[in-house]
Amino acid sequence: MRRTVFNEDHEAFRETIRDFIAAEVVPHYEQWEKQGYVPRELYLKLGELGVFGIEVPEEYGGAGETSFKYSAVISEETARAGVSFGGSGVHTALCLPYLLKYADEEQKRRWLPPFVTGEMMTAIAMTEPGAGSDLAGMKTTAKLSEDGTHYILNGAKTFITGGVQADRVLVCCRTAPPTPEDRRGGISILVVDTKSEGYAVGRNLDKLGLKSSDTAELSFTDVKVPVEDLLGEEGKAFSYLTHNLPQERLGIAVGAYAQSAAAVRFAQEYVRDRTVFGKPVASFQNTKFVLADCQADVDAMQAVVDRALDALDAGELTPADAASVKLFTTETAAKVIDKCLQLHGGYGYMREYPISRLYADTRVTRIYGGTSEVMRSIIAKSMGL
Amino acid sequence: MRRTVFNEDHEAFRETIRDFIAAEVVPHYEQWEKQGYVPRELYLKLGELGVFGIEVPEEYGGAGETSFKYSAVISEETARAGVSFGGSGVHTALCLPYLLKYADEEQKRRWLPPFVTGEMMTAIAMTEPGAGSDLAGMKTTAKLSEDGTHYILNGAKTFITGGVQADRVLVCCRTAPPTPEDRRGGISILVVDTKSEGYAVGRNLDKLGLKSSDTAELSFTDVKVPVEDLLGEEGKAFSYLTHNLPQERLGIAVGAYAQSAAAVRFAQEYVRDRTVFGKPVASFQNTKFVLADCQADVDAMQAVVDRALDALDAGELTPADAASVKLFTTETAAKVIDKCLQLHGGYGYMREYPISRLYADTRVTRIYGGTSEVMRSIIAKSMGL
Amino acid sequence: MRRTVFNEDHEAFRETIRDFIAAEVVPHYEQWEKQGYVPRELYLKLGELGVFGIEVPEEYGGAGETSFKYSAVISEETARAGVSFGGSGVHTALCLPYLLKYADEEQKRRWLPPFVTGEMMTAIAMTEPGAGSDLAGMKTTAKLSEDGTHYILNGAKTFITGGVQADRVLVCCRTAPPTPEDRRGGISILVVDTKSEGYAVGRNLDKLGLKSSDTAELSFTDVKVPVEDLLGEEGKAFSYLTHNLPQERLGIAVGAYAQSAAAVRFAQEYVRDRTVFGKPVASFQNTKFVLADCQADVDAMQAVVDRALDALDAGELTPADAASVKLFTTETAAKVIDKCLQLHGGYGYMREYPISRLYADTRVTRIYGGTSEVMRSIIAKSMGL
Amino acid sequence: MRRTVFNEDHEAFRETIRDFIAAEVVPHYEQWEKQGYVPRELYLKLGELGVFGIEVPEEYGGAGETSFKYSAVISEETARAGVSFGGSGVHTALCLPYLLKYADEEQKRRWLPPFVTGEMMTAIAMTEPGAGSDLAGMKTTAKLSEDGTHYILNGAKTFITGGVQADRVLVCCRTAPPTPEDRRGGISILVVDTKSEGYAVGRNLDKLGLKSSDTAELSFTDVKVPVEDLLGEEGKAFSYLTHNLPQERLGIAVGAYAQSAAAVRFAQEYVRDRTVFGKPVASFQNTKFVLADCQADVDAMQAVVDRALDALDAGELTPADAASVKLFTTETAAKVIDKCLQLHGGYGYMREYPISRLYADTRVTRIYGGTSEVMRSIIAKSMGL
Repeated sequence: MRRTVFNEDHEAFRETIRDFIAAEVVPHYEQWEKQGYVPRELYLKLGELGVFGIEVPEEYGGAGETSFKYSAVISEETARAGVSFGGSGVHTALCLPYLLKYADEEQKRRWLPPFVTGEMMTAIAMTEPGAGSDLAGMKTTAKLSEDGTHYILNGAKTFITGGVQADRVLVCCRTAPPTPEDRRGGISILVVDTKSEGYAVGRNLDKLGLKSSDTAELSFTDVKVPVEDLLGEEGKAFSYLTHNLPQERLGIAVGAYAQSAAAVRFAQEYVRDRTVFGKPVASFQNTKFVLADCQADVDAMQAVVDRALDALDAGELTPADAASVKLFTTETAAKVIDKCLQLHGGYGYMREYPISRLYADTRVTRIYGGTSEVMRSIIAKSMGL
Repeated sequence: MRRTVFNEDHEAFRETIRDFIAAEVVPHYEQWEKQGYVPRELYLKLGELGVFGIEVPEEYGGAGETSFKYSAVISEETARAGVSFGGSGVHTALCLPYLLKYADEEQKRRWLPPFVTGEMMTAIAMTEPGAGSDLAGMKTTAKLSEDGTHYILNGAKTFITGGVQADRVLVCCRTAPPTPEDRRGGISILVVDTKSEGYAVGRNLDKLGLKSSDTAELSFTDVKVPVEDLLGEEGKAFSYLTHNLPQERLGIAVGAYAQSAAAVRFAQEYVRDRTVFGKPVASFQNTKFVLADCQADVDAMQAVVDRALDALDAGELTPADAASVKLFTTETAAKVIDKCLQLHGGYGYMREYPISRLYADTRVTRIYGGTSEVMRSIIAKSMGL
Repeated sequence: MRRTVFNEDHEAFRETIRDFIAAEVVPHYEQWEKQGYVPRELYLKLGELGVFGIEVPEEYGGAGETSFKYSAVISEETARAGVSFGGSGVHTALCLPYLLKYADEEQKRRWLPPFVTGEMMTAIAMTEPGAGSDLAGMKTTAKLSEDGTHYILNGAKTFITGGVQADRVLVCCRTAPPTPEDRRGGISILVVDTKSEGYAVGRNLDKLGLKSSDTAELSFTDVKVPVEDLLGEEGKAFSYLTHNLPQERLGIAVGAYAQSAAAVRFAQEYVRDRTVFGKPVASFQNTKFVLADCQADVDAMQAVVDRALDALDAGELTPADAASVKLFTTETAAKVIDKCLQLHGGYGYMREYPISRLYADTRVTRIYGGTSEVMRSIIAKSMGL
Repeated sequence: MRRTVFNEDHEAFRETIRDFIAAEVVPHYEQWEKQGYVPRELYLKLGELGVFGIEVPEEYGGAGETSFKYSAVISEETARAGVSFGGSGVHTALCLPYLLKYADEEQKRRWLPPFVTGEMMTAIAMTEPGAGSDLAGMKTTAKLSEDGTHYILNGAKTFITGGVQADRVLVCCRTAPPTPEDRRGGISILVVDTKSEGYAVGRNLDKLGLKSSDTAELSFTDVKVPVEDLLGEEGKAFSYLTHNLPQERLGIAVGAYAQSAAAVRFAQEYVRDRTVFGKPVASFQNTKFVLADCQADVDAMQAVVDRALDALDAGELTPADAASVKLFTTETAAKVIDKCLQLHGGYGYMREYPISRLYADTRVTRIYGGTSEVMRSIIAKSMGL
């Protein structure tokens, strides 16, 4: 069915991104997956292309757009080619909203221009080893120095996408202990320079998929962070962190939809080209029925994702709506991509086929940005349960 | 998420229908289910309410609306109350489009006014015993009499919703045998008066669900049908029959969505009210998670159904799109309603609980209007498979 | 694969039952479903055939067998024909174990001979309106009269299979209130004569399926029950009730397996006989694949049911094992029977086709004898969770 | 439930294997996965342990056992530890049956002793690029030299597990073209020395999982193979290849069961140890219910696998039975392992956690040894469809 969610500007941007992927990403992607990260140049090229500045106001070097739909276009186009832009998604979709909303004027002048060019890549560090989705339980601490000029940061973080290559990391930490009345108080965000003394990057974690995105463990030992690098107000970060979740989750939902649509396209091509028992795989009724089921699922995913994109741009996307869309799309994507892989037979198990990478990549969408279990809790709450 | 598919007129109509159901249907519904059909008066009251005339031009007594969304509102409201209007859906959603599009002026003057008032109820007879979805294989014949004044109709039909009570039945039959080059040629539609000699109504079939809708076997033995009751051109009906399928299937999809939404609502109320092991059923995490999954499915169903309703009104809903929406919604409804029944425990198995009726009613949506298997074939064809 | 679970005696018994069903049940079954119960004569004939006495010691008129496998044979054969023996399953599989284990010698002499002949049909009343699976929460009370000769029974029960026709009902009730330390104490079983004054049978509940089994609401108003009709010790019944659960649940599992195997057989026959688009339904790849999936599921169900039957006869079937087998078979049966119905197209929705009855009948197996949710709790507990 | 399938000898063997895995495999396994193959020494150690000789007659250095259950024990124990023995499974479960059944006395003397010690590792090459499951369509040819002393082998193979390290590969090839009457004739097996001139090993394919098993593309350019290395009769190999399939498929089924059981165990441990929102993950009802479902599935898998193991040892396992067991276990394993991964949250996505490896490893079980689609075809045929 005709989509009404994208306008001409979005479609022109889509063309640009599609060409960029074909020229600058696809030829090198296998190597990037092997090494476990994308090269630094990719970020500079994406900066030059304007990808990092879409939502940044013009005075800081950006384009000043306010629609999340450009990000959706990028998700669709990378999925379509079976590639990713490494930690770029974290840079723009996760970190940028915090900088735009909570950085003061001085910080914006300092951070946004290099953010836009890709010279200053960012990541965000929330999860701690052994703490999972429970933000209020975090143990990393930042104590104000006696002279009040800097914080002393101590602790450890894990699962930090883009954390190996980032120049600045938004580290969530406790500047005050929780109180019995307010478990969520006392959390702050420091925008830490990763070249600081005492700041250490552990292993680039070996993941099931998302092989071209570096994912780090970080540790902080008496890291000195200037007070000028505190984002927003001290102790108020818990609410900051929840504020951006609907957009973050919709971003994941768009990706899950786009991966599914891409998987169907890969399978369609494969079954048309391949022959077994003297007939094209596409000519078997099972092939037709399986792909038809997948297409119907993809149509539903597209409809609900598009509705949510319009709602987000209109400022109407509730946390429960975002949870619903993330839950539906990521759970459905798992089924669709699994079926499309199966249609590839043995080739589906080989990482050189994009369907294999999609299978491994999509598995994390039911986990990160809040697990499916967390989504269910949010939805249930909104239903009065 | 906010729906944009209905305007104020639709919502006003919704209020009217909701009140009507509460006053005129709910108090009697158990009895209607028991007897296997709704009373004739219901149809007259629906006629009076204007339900049958919504899409009929004003010159024939209708309201002249062109949107299918009023039908969607009726589907939503009947499902919401766990009831149905017997064979009314067939009367308006299936039969009317043929009359509006193919009846000539004389026929419209003759048929539409009593159609609108409910005095002339209609049904449509396509399926034959042992022939299923294969329209071109039908064996009922209509031979022109020697003097050319009437057809002689012979044959049998089955699964005719509303067939016990109908006054006129659109009987699909062969006025000429199929040719090897054109299996689909030679099929015509006669709008048969059910009081004709030789016209016999067999059993009211005992179904798993849809208990208040009569479903008949019909047989025709030398039934004389005046040539004035031929609808459209002789031998051209195969294309007529396929023409209306997208709307018919979307109608079923809307019903499946609405039944699912109703099931979630029934379950929500039940689990809040009921206590087990000293706690409300709603307080168990399993209850919350199951209902959250259902809600996310319902949200997706709503999004794709709404998109299709807009597309239909815009004249853009393709057969493959309609097949996709029917397949997705009816398959998903089966899962959702099954889960909501389970949350009712033993009460879910009792027909006095609407969830039990929804469970039995929804099973047919994967079969009628074209089975899920037929939907998959249509979608696969549109994918070039 | 070859089954080793049945010996020659079991197979000879199978022949007898199969012949009996063909001669005495199938010809009348549609009528029994319509009326909502089986005729009293059926029970007398089953008594004559020896079905009720299999596990009753010879001195009370039975055959003195100790294997549950004869019951399994009956389940398999009734499912195979798409019929049931009304409340017989409750009579033998649920009530008998209590009588055999807890009745004293006098009671056995009084009750077992008419039990065996079918002259005294039994049922068991545990569930109360609004209380579900929470036995300890029951509110029906039995107070000892001042002279100690009888109990005064007051309360209400629901979902009592066989309750309309039963001559004696094992009524679970509170002879003492629960204490904070022991919620489960104070529960007793009275074997109540259904002709007692104050004993009332409410509606024969209208169920989704199991149409030939009567299911009653019962109410007790100052019913006098002689102390001679107390089963076992006063106040100890909670443990009695849990004791027999593994066998009861295995019985349901056997039924779910047998219904699934029967559904596959019905579908196999149907798709071989029926033709669509000029080809047998059996010749479509989708038909083959769907039935192959069903067969693989049935093979697994058979293997696990057979293992459990051996374990039960060996006295080794734990509550968690029984829960596991019930959960797996009933959940799988739902999927298998749904698929087999779908292969029947419109005919699958007509109650005259046994697949339609199996679909409606099997739905309750995930609810009665402990819901799937209760089964999961039991299994989880056994896993140390 | 108590398993009866293993005797004391099997259990003693299990202890040995378990100890070996703990001492010799687990400490190095991460490294082996990284490098993409197990070290040659592992094979020598397994040889020394007697693993390769279990089913080899004593006169050739083996133990002369005839039960497949020892292989089942190995599958269970490697899965339990989340590891594999590289290409060992192919060596014993796939290649050995051909050597035992079709090698002549001279060949057995030549090949079996080094087979047993692990000095001569074997692999089997059936699949060709672009040909999938269609054995009769193979294009690799072997022409007898003019002097009749050797074959000239040309062609290419792919997906050859163990193919990088193998010393001898059983290459399936055409020694005569297919005829219209007999597509399957003319296929032979040559036991090719991998050091032959013209024999080339391509890339070690990068797979989604099974990272420690090397999987090769092979190409043959005028490879001279002595006629003494023809296995069995020329042109008869098609029937040889199908003969061993039931055992091969049961082997995969055992692995799928064992991986599932292991996954449940890993998840059980994880949820007991981990805390979220101040409570152990194990204490959430969702955790309990999900793991209970998994356990019930595992119980059913175990029952059907055990039944099949007994049937295989008794010479009664039909191709359709083996297909049924493979289909059921591998499809069920996919669901079980996916759920167990989800319970691990973000850690489930990290390859250092065995659940992550199980997830990737198990995906191929629905593809190799015949896809689920091929299994369905076999079962359907046996059902007369």
